[in-house]
Amino acid sequence: MNLDKLQLSPLQRIILTTDGSITTVLEALFGEVMVETRLQKLARANRRMARLLGIERGEEVNVREVSLNSMHRALVYAVSLTPIGRIEESFREEIMKEDVPIGRILKKLKIEYRREIRDYSAVGAGKNIAQALGLNRNELLLRRNYHIFREGKVMMNITEFFPYRLFGDATPTPSP
Amino acid sequence: MNLDKLQLSPLQRIILTTDGSITTVLEALFGEVMVETRLQKLARANRRMARLLGIERGEEVNVREVSLNSMHRALVYAVSLTPIGRIEESFREEIMKEDVPIGRILKKLKIEYRREIRDYSAVGAGKNIAQALGLNRNELLLRRNYHIFREGKVMMNITEFFPYRLFGDATPTPSP
Repeated sequence: MNLDKLQLSPLQRIILTTDGSITTVLEALFGEVMVETRLQKLARANRRMARLLGIERGEEVNVREVSLNSMHRALVYAVSLTPIGRIEESFREEIMKEDVPIGRILKKLKIEYRREIRDYSAVGAGKNIAQALGLNRNELLLRRNYHIFREGKVMMNITEFFPYRLFGDATPTPSP
Repeated sequence: MNLDKLQLSPLQRIILTTDGSITTVLEALFGEVMVETRLQKLARANRRMARLLGIERGEEVNVREVSLNSMHRALVYAVSLTPIGRIEESFREEIMKEDVPIGRILKKLKIEYRREIRDYSAVGAGKNIAQALGLNRNELLLRRNYHIFREGKVMMNITEFFPYRLFGDATPTPSP
């Protein structure tokens, strides 16, 4: 769906456009954020993935799907693709731990990088994400995709899905 | 003033804690943001500045004070200290242009970096900032200070001042 046709709240606009850690924004809104890992696997890059990440077909990619949750609800569904050859051992360990948001890993390891937002759109939740976030399958999601660049190369590609409703109200009730 | 004693709105918390471009957040809220330069000069680092930036006393530092404004009002006052020896010619040219926010320069030049928030507090506006932002001298400001690191060194130190009132309401009226 074309985003221009949706009325976006200030919060929705911040969340779609920020080049900062989304975890940090969510924690400012909802209090502590936790990761729930839905999928974590190593895959060989197919043609599409290789082109997206700028790697060779067949190279190893870490695929991770998580929800970020506050104490009270699921906030975001995130899919990350990380070419294993582009991250060091310490990063790999953190990302495999299954409970640490990417933003917090980057911060902890003091990694210098650049987030480049590639596109955003509005989509229906679909079965998988609806289940993970506890939503109706037809629920409207805001979706964005961005690269994290390090040393001029794509270190990660991330797609995030936010329930439109959750961020439509500019004053969510934070955790106490 | 101790921030713990203030009730912070979701927006105030986002603005104080984000490690993303503050210009991008402001544009999500208020529409296009412009820079108005209040001061731009080269200075020799004194002892305090040298310690803050991790440089030698006497090294050249670009001191820049600006307000970031929407079409309708002044939003933020920002003071940046940039050791000249740590930025390339292209960056220097951009920063001297006087009309480009730092976040936009970093993006344009595709610079990889890390923002590290050092502290935040609440302060009175004082004469200088009150005048620049069109506020009463006793107006309450939220203040934060952070480093922008590149290649493990402080490339800039930035202090931002936000009128507490302006971000207290979570639904500011954006520009049309």
